[in-house]
Amino acid sequence: MATHHFTPSRYYTTMGAHEPALHIADGDTVITSTVDARGWDAARAQSGPRGNPQTGPFFVEGAAPGDTLALRLDRIVPSRRYGWSGTLLAHNVVDPEYVPKLGWPADDRSTLAEWDVDAAAGTARLLSHDVGLGALVLPLAPMLGCFGVAARGGQAISTATSAEHGGNMDYRGCVAGATLYFPVFEPGALIHVGDGHARQGDGEIAGTGIEISMEVEFTAWLIKGQRIEWPRGENADYIFTIGNARPLDQALQHATSEMHRWLLASYALDPAGAGILLGQCVEYDLGNVFDPAYTMVCKLHKSFLPHRV
Amino acid sequence: MATHHFTPSRYYTTMGAHEPALHIADGDTVITSTVDARGWDAARAQSGPRGNPQTGPFFVEGAAPGDTLALRLDRIVPSRRYGWSGTLLAHNVVDPEYVPKLGWPADDRSTLAEWDVDAAAGTARLLSHDVGLGALVLPLAPMLGCFGVAARGGQAISTATSAEHGGNMDYRGCVAGATLYFPVFEPGALIHVGDGHARQGDGEIAGTGIEISMEVEFTAWLIKGQRIEWPRGENADYIFTIGNARPLDQALQHATSEMHRWLLASYALDPAGAGILLGQCVEYDLGNVFDPAYTMVCKLHKSFLPHRV
Amino acid sequence: MATHHFTPSRYYTTMGAHEPALHIADGDTVITSTVDARGWDAARAQSGPRGNPQTGPFFVEGAAPGDTLALRLDRIVPSRRYGWSGTLLAHNVVDPEYVPKLGWPADDRSTLAEWDVDAAAGTARLLSHDVGLGALVLPLAPMLGCFGVAARGGQAISTATSAEHGGNMDYRGCVAGATLYFPVFEPGALIHVGDGHARQGDGEIAGTGIEISMEVEFTAWLIKGQRIEWPRGENADYIFTIGNARPLDQALQHATSEMHRWLLASYALDPAGAGILLGQCVEYDLGNVFDPAYTMVCKLHKSFLPHRV
Amino acid sequence: MATHHFTPSRYYTTMGAHEPALHIADGDTVITSTVDARGWDAARAQSGPRGNPQTGPFFVEGAAPGDTLALRLDRIVPSRRYGWSGTLLAHNVVDPEYVPKLGWPADDRSTLAEWDVDAAAGTARLLSHDVGLGALVLPLAPMLGCFGVAARGGQAISTATSAEHGGNMDYRGCVAGATLYFPVFEPGALIHVGDGHARQGDGEIAGTGIEISMEVEFTAWLIKGQRIEWPRGENADYIFTIGNARPLDQALQHATSEMHRWLLASYALDPAGAGILLGQCVEYDLGNVFDPAYTMVCKLHKSFLPHRV
Repeated sequence: MATHHFTPSRYYTTMGAHEPALHIADGDTVITSTVDARGWDAARAQSGPRGNPQTGPFFVEGAAPGDTLALRLDRIVPSRRYGWSGTLLAHNVVDPEYVPKLGWPADDRSTLAEWDVDAAAGTARLLSHDVGLGALVLPLAPMLGCFGVAARGGQAISTATSAEHGGNMDYRGCVAGATLYFPVFEPGALIHVGDGHARQGDGEIAGTGIEISMEVEFTAWLIKGQRIEWPRGENADYIFTIGNARPLDQALQHATSEMHRWLLASYALDPAGAGILLGQCVEYDLGNVFDPAYTMVCKLHKSFLPHRV
Repeated sequence: MATHHFTPSRYYTTMGAHEPALHIADGDTVITSTVDARGWDAARAQSGPRGNPQTGPFFVEGAAPGDTLALRLDRIVPSRRYGWSGTLLAHNVVDPEYVPKLGWPADDRSTLAEWDVDAAAGTARLLSHDVGLGALVLPLAPMLGCFGVAARGGQAISTATSAEHGGNMDYRGCVAGATLYFPVFEPGALIHVGDGHARQGDGEIAGTGIEISMEVEFTAWLIKGQRIEWPRGENADYIFTIGNARPLDQALQHATSEMHRWLLASYALDPAGAGILLGQCVEYDLGNVFDPAYTMVCKLHKSFLPHRV
Repeated sequence: MATHHFTPSRYYTTMGAHEPALHIADGDTVITSTVDARGWDAARAQSGPRGNPQTGPFFVEGAAPGDTLALRLDRIVPSRRYGWSGTLLAHNVVDPEYVPKLGWPADDRSTLAEWDVDAAAGTARLLSHDVGLGALVLPLAPMLGCFGVAARGGQAISTATSAEHGGNMDYRGCVAGATLYFPVFEPGALIHVGDGHARQGDGEIAGTGIEISMEVEFTAWLIKGQRIEWPRGENADYIFTIGNARPLDQALQHATSEMHRWLLASYALDPAGAGILLGQCVEYDLGNVFDPAYTMVCKLHKSFLPHRV
Repeated sequence: MATHHFTPSRYYTTMGAHEPALHIADGDTVITSTVDARGWDAARAQSGPRGNPQTGPFFVEGAAPGDTLALRLDRIVPSRRYGWSGTLLAHNVVDPEYVPKLGWPADDRSTLAEWDVDAAAGTARLLSHDVGLGALVLPLAPMLGCFGVAARGGQAISTATSAEHGGNMDYRGCVAGATLYFPVFEPGALIHVGDGHARQGDGEIAGTGIEISMEVEFTAWLIKGQRIEWPRGENADYIFTIGNARPLDQALQHATSEMHRWLLASYALDPAGAGILLGQCVEYDLGNVFDPAYTMVCKLHKSFLPHRV
């Protein structure tokens, strides 16, 4: 259970079987850094390409297709003060007839909002935008928007979207303290991490969170021989499953099916037990509704769970 | 601002321009009762038809098409101990290939789970279901699943679904203390209330909450000349908007457009102000994903709101 | 098998259990007229309301819920020369980012294109629009956009949309010679007809066909005790089923399920027979993609059908 | 304008920047072969992997990102007599409640239907399936289900799905005589071809066409500097555009936007001209509704087109 300090020199905008940046053992911890969604690093220098460039991939020794990779997010801290975000709602999150009201200029290029991110104070302060919001100061909730493992079936999938391997899910629950579980599709699993947000609303409906470079620490371990279909996760209070697809209906179907499978396999419920419990206790969170694939999260509070098998 | 005690003798399974059951004035309070989704009353007698039968409609003097009706839910309390719920997940909330795993019998008729609902203790206890859940006791969160006003354009819309006028939204936020705002489509607005749930998971994914008859108290008033497109609401902490449509993507578009309109009209924001604020602060809740029309709720915490115009 | 000549004096913009305009017997023929989608009659006078006003309803003696109503379209002929259509694509049929390119003015009101419709020559000629199309003369294909029976479950459904009872399906196959089958939901079935189009592209993607008043002749008969779930139809070459819902995926699911049911019940196929046949021979046509509910049609050429049971 | 005879020795199940199998010049013709969707070749031997294995990629000298690649399908002829197809409808093409009626066994593995494909006679005859279809003999309509160029943004996309680069579109219009246009994303464009169907119904709703190995001849040329967003095509009668996405609504939006762009750029129409023309003349065909991404085709008959600029 070593701890690795890794300084990235190359970033990827697809998630696939790229050459490993570092080999780690089952149970190891990695302390590394991520650049922001445009490739800007802690010094605001362009050190990676645009489009959610990923640090890694990290090869976990012993990981084989059909296993599950556990990834605990130990620490996610902004590594600079400068954050930026979109200023206009995405075209696809409003009624088609309402699109002209969103304020997009003819060339579809909007300006950026800029934020002063104070990690110590735990705040993001909107800079210089005279848009009627006054002195807007928001609490931080640092998270990773895009991360996961190499994609299924030998694919290399753009970090602009998401699928069974994770990717650009932009789920607010991906904060320090959460553990994610991913299906392993390639030898070594090939962990990718990136796209830090100092904070984000549900859905990433303006196309961004408060985008920022991060210091990231995570711990990875294997659950050998456990095959899952979609990402799962847990935190102190909840277990959850993640579906990535469009429309949202299908993302919800993926996540709900995965939760049902989990309850039957790990909590010894039959379909009626799972139906009764989920029917009255399930919660859903909304991840990304900006990408080609949307994200829906199916949650169950641990206090309602029967004993694990 | 009178208080009316109303005992229903007839229930409707569509929401339209039915003959008013009671005329009330702007600002009045109504204390009444609702039967459950199958028409069973406080004595478990069948006193209404199946399918979310509605108490009302209540004609609000002075309400005219183009106005907004405010409806504050003052009190929602189970009026009997017997609650029931579905036991199996709905076919449409899982992947099509997973449907055969849900446990539905060949005739598509599942048994009901039965609950002992103790309003004083604030609990629902699962009765006699040996499904691996042990002694399942859940906290109550009494709500109305289906309510609203007469439908748009002279329609009579089934209480199995929802639209601009409200209807079967099954949103967990419709609890005592919440105020809903509905567009007025018919003279008198014609308030309908019904489909009480002692508790419900997000989405009503087993097709029901814990269905039960209710004592309901609400207060209604008019906002003359304010035209809204979709239901709005607020509680102590949030303002919110509700979109009803399928797929969920479109429900989300309706709700998000309505929130954007609200921020521009009532909080003096321009599109960039609304975009920046919503982008980093918006939250979404999931209403019904079982009906023909699904429900998505767009929320904004009041602490982030600028001063109201 | 009488023939009725009926001149309407009242038009409905919902499809429900309205007072019958005329009672007819099983097998009778009706010769009547329809006004256009804006209520303009053969003399271009406003004689009905806007929004696909319907002629009828016609009460078929003996029709009861659970029966099927057959409706053969015998003759659909424009009753004037003046036709009109939308000039801009609907916002919802293009990518959200592309909406600003459609040319909609700020007030969302576009001008109308006007057409000279010559029923004898079988042509529609575009009038006075200098839009680069030159002398555009299109062949006529007169059809009914919106028709059917009273809606399910006591509802009154807007003629702006469609459901199990038919409604605003805008399917190009609804021409003279086609027979439609509708589920009967109300005593008498209550046939409504309206929304004639001299011609229309698939999907009604500019929001209209070439809208025009019509002379309409149809023959109606009952199939007692045959319960169908969605509209069916046939013409000389095809049998077809119609699904109305949003998204298109669900409309397609409705239509495909109905076709599968039809093949099993009436053509003695088992699921493998139906699967093999549909898999290699099915065709789909697109109805309306402009309404709240979209329309998809599932077709099978009669030459591929086994003998009917 | 050379003609190349190419015998593949390796097949790919993703479409990306794989090592070129052959370099060809602008305007060259290639005569090659494809194995079927399971990798079975003309001798029914397993010579490629399962999952629409692709022949190629073919590097077109001079092709650069931002160009358009034209690909004319010159000849598609079954190279053996043995064809196979699925026997049961896919779970996702029927209503969720109807899934149990489709006949899927508990292990989700259905048997295959087998066909005797006689290319000379132009027929496929169903073998040995006693499913009530009698002696089913269908006319051939040989097509390619999955083909195109390397995917966008450095991705490698599974041949189980489709996107801007083409892929598994399963469009019945992709027959000999059709010319397809693809956006070039990688140097050389990197043409992939595979997944021949002796015949197929719309939508590939049983998950397959009549799957078979093929002899394929195509001619490729470049349109330098012409950037398109989605695949386009034409045949003797129509121009068409292809959208690949889920839900179908979005596939339709992609295809319709691309057609609108085409009419404005190449036929000198303004938005009103394009709206009037498409509104009354557009047709849509359905491609795949079985993949992760569905396919919708937007067509316009050439007889309605104004002169090309």
